[in-house]
Amino acid sequence: MQLGLVGLGKMGFNMRERLRKAGHEVIGYDPRPEVSDVPSLAALADALQTPRVVWVMVPSGSITRETITSLADELSAGDLVIDGGNSRYTEDGPHAKMLGDKGINFVDAGVSGGVWGLTEGYGLMVGGADADVERAMPIFDALRPGGPREDGFVHAGPVGAGHFAKMVHNGVEYALMTAYAEGYEMLAAEDLIEDPQAVYQAWTNGTVVRSWLQQLLAKALKEDPGFAEISGYTEDSGEGRWTVEEAIRLRVPVPSIAAALFARFLSRQDESPTMKAVAALRNQFGGHAVKRISESG
Amino acid sequence: MQLGLVGLGKMGFNMRERLRKAGHEVIGYDPRPEVSDVPSLAALADALQTPRVVWVMVPSGSITRETITSLADELSAGDLVIDGGNSRYTEDGPHAKMLGDKGINFVDAGVSGGVWGLTEGYGLMVGGADADVERAMPIFDALRPGGPREDGFVHAGPVGAGHFAKMVHNGVEYALMTAYAEGYEMLAAEDLIEDPQAVYQAWTNGTVVRSWLQQLLAKALKEDPGFAEISGYTEDSGEGRWTVEEAIRLRVPVPSIAAALFARFLSRQDESPTMKAVAALRNQFGGHAVKRISESG
Amino acid sequence: MQLGLVGLGKMGFNMRERLRKAGHEVIGYDPRPEVSDVPSLAALADALQTPRVVWVMVPSGSITRETITSLADELSAGDLVIDGGNSRYTEDGPHAKMLGDKGINFVDAGVSGGVWGLTEGYGLMVGGADADVERAMPIFDALRPGGPREDGFVHAGPVGAGHFAKMVHNGVEYALMTAYAEGYEMLAAEDLIEDPQAVYQAWTNGTVVRSWLQQLLAKALKEDPGFAEISGYTEDSGEGRWTVEEAIRLRVPVPSIAAALFARFLSRQDESPTMKAVAALRNQFGGHAVKRISESG
Amino acid sequence: MQLGLVGLGKMGFNMRERLRKAGHEVIGYDPRPEVSDVPSLAALADALQTPRVVWVMVPSGSITRETITSLADELSAGDLVIDGGNSRYTEDGPHAKMLGDKGINFVDAGVSGGVWGLTEGYGLMVGGADADVERAMPIFDALRPGGPREDGFVHAGPVGAGHFAKMVHNGVEYALMTAYAEGYEMLAAEDLIEDPQAVYQAWTNGTVVRSWLQQLLAKALKEDPGFAEISGYTEDSGEGRWTVEEAIRLRVPVPSIAAALFARFLSRQDESPTMKAVAALRNQFGGHAVKRISESG
Repeated sequence: MQLGLVGLGKMGFNMRERLRKAGHEVIGYDPRPEVSDVPSLAALADALQTPRVVWVMVPSGSITRETITSLADELSAGDLVIDGGNSRYTEDGPHAKMLGDKGINFVDAGVSGGVWGLTEGYGLMVGGADADVERAMPIFDALRPGGPREDGFVHAGPVGAGHFAKMVHNGVEYALMTAYAEGYEMLAAEDLIEDPQAVYQAWTNGTVVRSWLQQLLAKALKEDPGFAEISGYTEDSGEGRWTVEEAIRLRVPVPSIAAALFARFLSRQDESPTMKAVAALRNQFGGHAVKRISESG
Repeated sequence: MQLGLVGLGKMGFNMRERLRKAGHEVIGYDPRPEVSDVPSLAALADALQTPRVVWVMVPSGSITRETITSLADELSAGDLVIDGGNSRYTEDGPHAKMLGDKGINFVDAGVSGGVWGLTEGYGLMVGGADADVERAMPIFDALRPGGPREDGFVHAGPVGAGHFAKMVHNGVEYALMTAYAEGYEMLAAEDLIEDPQAVYQAWTNGTVVRSWLQQLLAKALKEDPGFAEISGYTEDSGEGRWTVEEAIRLRVPVPSIAAALFARFLSRQDESPTMKAVAALRNQFGGHAVKRISESG
Repeated sequence: MQLGLVGLGKMGFNMRERLRKAGHEVIGYDPRPEVSDVPSLAALADALQTPRVVWVMVPSGSITRETITSLADELSAGDLVIDGGNSRYTEDGPHAKMLGDKGINFVDAGVSGGVWGLTEGYGLMVGGADADVERAMPIFDALRPGGPREDGFVHAGPVGAGHFAKMVHNGVEYALMTAYAEGYEMLAAEDLIEDPQAVYQAWTNGTVVRSWLQQLLAKALKEDPGFAEISGYTEDSGEGRWTVEEAIRLRVPVPSIAAALFARFLSRQDESPTMKAVAALRNQFGGHAVKRISESG
Repeated sequence: MQLGLVGLGKMGFNMRERLRKAGHEVIGYDPRPEVSDVPSLAALADALQTPRVVWVMVPSGSITRETITSLADELSAGDLVIDGGNSRYTEDGPHAKMLGDKGINFVDAGVSGGVWGLTEGYGLMVGGADADVERAMPIFDALRPGGPREDGFVHAGPVGAGHFAKMVHNGVEYALMTAYAEGYEMLAAEDLIEDPQAVYQAWTNGTVVRSWLQQLLAKALKEDPGFAEISGYTEDSGEGRWTVEEAIRLRVPVPSIAAALFARFLSRQDESPTMKAVAALRNQFGGHAVKRISESG
C-alpha cells in the first residue's frame, strides 16, 4: 500500500527501506533535502492518494506536536495519522482530538528495535480504533519481524495504549540493562574470574538469563574489553522517567526501574551533592576525615 | 566416556538422560532405589573404571559436603570430582583441599537451564585446573547446548570461578525477573491496556527486551491469566543472598539485585514489621488513623 | 493582630487555640457550625477589618482550590491570603495569579508539627513577597516554636518555595521513618535482643540517631509492644509521591525516599502482582513449587 | 571506681576525661607514651586492684582481637573486660570464650556519640551477664548522658547484644544521613529555594524531621555553603556492611540501609563499571552516542 512517512532520521530512514523491500510505496518527507522524497509536508499531502495514511517518526515532544498540527492542516477527513515516535502516551489523546476535529483518524505506535530493526524487524505496540489499526495492518506486517503476528505486534488497546506499552517496555529495558551491568561489575571485580566477556558469551545459550541484551553486552565487551574506551555518562530519553511517574500515579512499586533511572541521573553528576552532604555529616559528628576538593584531583 | 553421577533429582535425572543420548556411559547413584543404577556410593566407585570422573548433583550445603566427604573415601588418587550443584563458591576451596589431600582432583561447575536443559542443553560455567577441565570436556560438550562451545560454556578460572559465575548469573536472574514483573504489574494496573499477556507475547520478536524469561512470562500469563491461581510467596535458594553478600565484600553497588532479593523476603511476610512501625509512627505525630488488626481481615 | 482562619480541623482547630493564647484575635470559619465562629465565608469577610489576612487550612487539592476561588470573590484588593495546607507547590502559582488578578496578595506556608504543634509550636516554611511575609510575621511568630526565629521558620523564597520546602520535608520524613522502621525490624528479628523498645528508648540521649521520630517510635513501642495491635497498611497523603516526581524533574537521585514511598504502596496490596509474576516465572523455568492460592491460608 | 582503659584515641581519650570528671580513677594505656598513664598492658594490670575492670577502646578487627588476647594473659580470674569498640557482634562470642576459659568475664558495649560524647555523654548499648553489667554500672552511668538511665543506656541482652544493637544503630544512621542528604540535594537543585541552609536551620524546632543529625547538617551548611570545599568520597567503617549482611541472614528487607551503603561504594568509584556497561549497551542497540573517555574531560 501507499504510505507517507514524515521523519527520515535514524529510525525513519531504515523503516522506509524495510517497507520498500516489502513492496510498499513509501513517500518520505524530511527537512533535509538529501534524504527527502518531497520538498514539503504540503507536497507530501499532494503526492498521496486519498484517503491517506501518514506515519510520523520524529523526536517526541514539541516536534511531534508541531508536525501533527501541520498535518491537521494538510490532510483531509478520512485520512489516518500514525505517531510512531516515542511520544508520552498522555499526548496521544490531545493529538487524536486535534486531528479528530477535522475528521482525521489517529493511531499511536510504539516501535522497538533500534538500528537492528531494518534487518530483524521492529517490535510494534499500537493503540487506536479497530478499523484504523486494521487499515494500517499491511504496514505493521511489513515492519514487524517475521513469524506469528502476535509475537511481534500487539493492538494493545484504544488510543494511548501503544505508547503506554512502549513506555513500560523501555522502563523494563532500563532495569534489564542495569541488572546485566551489575552482574558485569561483579564479575570484573572478582579476581577468580579471568574474563567477564567469556562469561557473558557463555550465557548466550542454555542459561536462564539469555537474551538479546545479554548477547549485545557480550558483543560490546568483545569490541571494547573492560570498557576502557567509554564513559559511564548515560542520557535518558524520557521513557524511564515517565515510567516511574506513571508507576507513582498507579501506585505500583517499581524499585528496579527507579534504581536504573537514578543510576543514570547519578552517572551525569561530576559530584553527588547527596554524598557531599553525607561526607560533611560524618565529619560533623565523628571527626571523620573528609576528602577536600583540593585532594580529590 | 564413562561418568559416575551422584544425585538423580530434578536436574541429575535429566542430565543422565541427555548424556546417554549423546552416547556416554552414565552410572547414576541416588538413595532412591527406583532411580538409582547402583545401590551405594561404594558400588558406584566399584563400577567405574579408574581414573574415574564423578559428577555430584545434590542440594548445596551439608548434603554436598557429606557427599564429597564420602567420595574422598571411596575414590582414589587421579580421580576427578565435579560439583555441579549450586554450592556457594566459597565451599569449593575446602572441597578441593579435602579431595586434593588424597590426590583427587576437583572442578566446580555452575549449571543453568532448569527443567528445559534436557532438550535445550545446559549453560555451563566451570572452574578448575586446565587439565581437569579438559578431561571432562566430552561431558561438558554433551550437556551444553549445540552451537559454538563458547556460547554455552566457559572455563571461567581456577577452582571456585565456576560457582562464582553461576552465583552472579542467578543474582542477575533475580533482577531480570523483578524487572519483567514490575513491567507486568504496570500493564495490569493501567486501564488502557486490554491484555498484558498480549503485550508480553508481542515482545517476543523484534523488541529490545526480548529474552527467554520474557517468553516464559508470556507463557505463564497465557496459562494463568492475571495469575489468579498463584500466590506471590517466593522462596530464595541462596544465590541471591550470596550475590548481595559478595557484592558487599567487593564493594560493588547492586541496587537492582538487592531490590529483587528484598522483594522476595517481603513476599514471605504476612505483615511487614517495618510498615507496622511506619504506621505506628504516623499515628504518633499526625494522629493519622491506623488500620487496627481487627479491621484488616 | 486579627486573622481569619478557614478550616478548623485537626490542624486549624489547634492553631486557633495557639494563636489566641498568644493574644491574637482569630475569627475561624468551618462548615461545621459547632466549631465555627461565623456562619459563612462571606460572614468571615464581613467580620474582618480591611486590609484582611486570611489563613486557609483545608485539605489540599480541590477543597483548597474552591476555598481560594471563593475568597477571591469575598475579599478585596490589598487583602492577604495564606495557604497553610499541604498544597502541591505547583498550585501556588495559579492561586497567586487568581488572587492577584483582584489585587489580593498570596503567601504559601508549609506547616509541620502535627498534633504536637499546639504545645510545641509549628515548624514553618513560607514562600511569597517580602512585604507579604513581613505583614504576617506576628502570626508566624506565634505559631512557630519559641527560640530563635530562624530555628523554626524560614522565608524560603518566592511564592511556591514554602510548599516546595514542606514537600521535601515530608519526603525526607518518609525516608527517616522507614530507616528507623528497618532498624526496628532487625532488632525484633534477632534473638539476642531482649526488647527492641528498650534499645529505641536508649537511643534517646547521646546517640547519633536521636531525634523526635526516634522518641516517638520508642513511645509507640511502649504503648503497643511488638505492634501487635496495628496493621502495616499505610496511606500516603501526596507529598511523598510529589517529592519523587519533582526529583525526577530535577534529575536528583532519591533512592531512599523512593524506597519509602514504594514500601507504602506495597503495604496496601493484599498480594503483590510483581511477586506473583516472579513466582510464576520461577515455576516456569525451574519447576519450583509455587504456593497456590488455596494453600496460602 | 577504678577502671583500666586501653586505647586513648579520638574516643578513648575523651572518655577518660569524662570518667575522671565524674570522680572515677582511670588508668589509661596507649602505645603512644605522650597520652598513656602506664608503659604497657602488663603495667596496667599491675596498677589495677583485683578484681579488675578493663575497658578496651581500640579499632575493631585484628587490633581488638590482639588486645583481648594479650589481656587474657595479663588479667586473672574474676576480672572483667569490656569491649567498647565497634567490633562486629559475631566476634563477641569468641572473645568471651577466650577470656572465659581463664575465668575472666566479658561485656560488649556499643558506644555512640562521636566527638560530642565528652560533653553530651555517650549513648550505650551493652550485652553480657547481669552481674557483669551491674558491676560496671558506675562507669556506664558516668559515660552516658544525664537524665533517666533508660534514655541513654540499654542492657540489650547476653554477650553480643550490645554490639548488635550498635551495628543496627549505625545502619539506621547511614540511612538517616542519606535521607537528609537527598532532601538537601533537592532543595539545592530547585531555583525557588533561595538558601537550603536556611531551610535546614528552620527544621530545627517544631518540625517532624528535627533531629541531631538535621542540626548538624544545618551547621555543616553554614560552615561550608554548597559544600564547595569537600568531596562526596565517603568511607564506610564496617557497620553498614555488616547491617546489610545480617539483614540478609535474618531475611529482613532493608532497602533504605542498602541504598545508603551502595551510595557510599559508588562515591568512591571514579567511574561506575555498571554505568559503563549500560552506556555500551545503549550504544549497541540504539546507536546512541556514548561519551568517549577522551571527551569526558
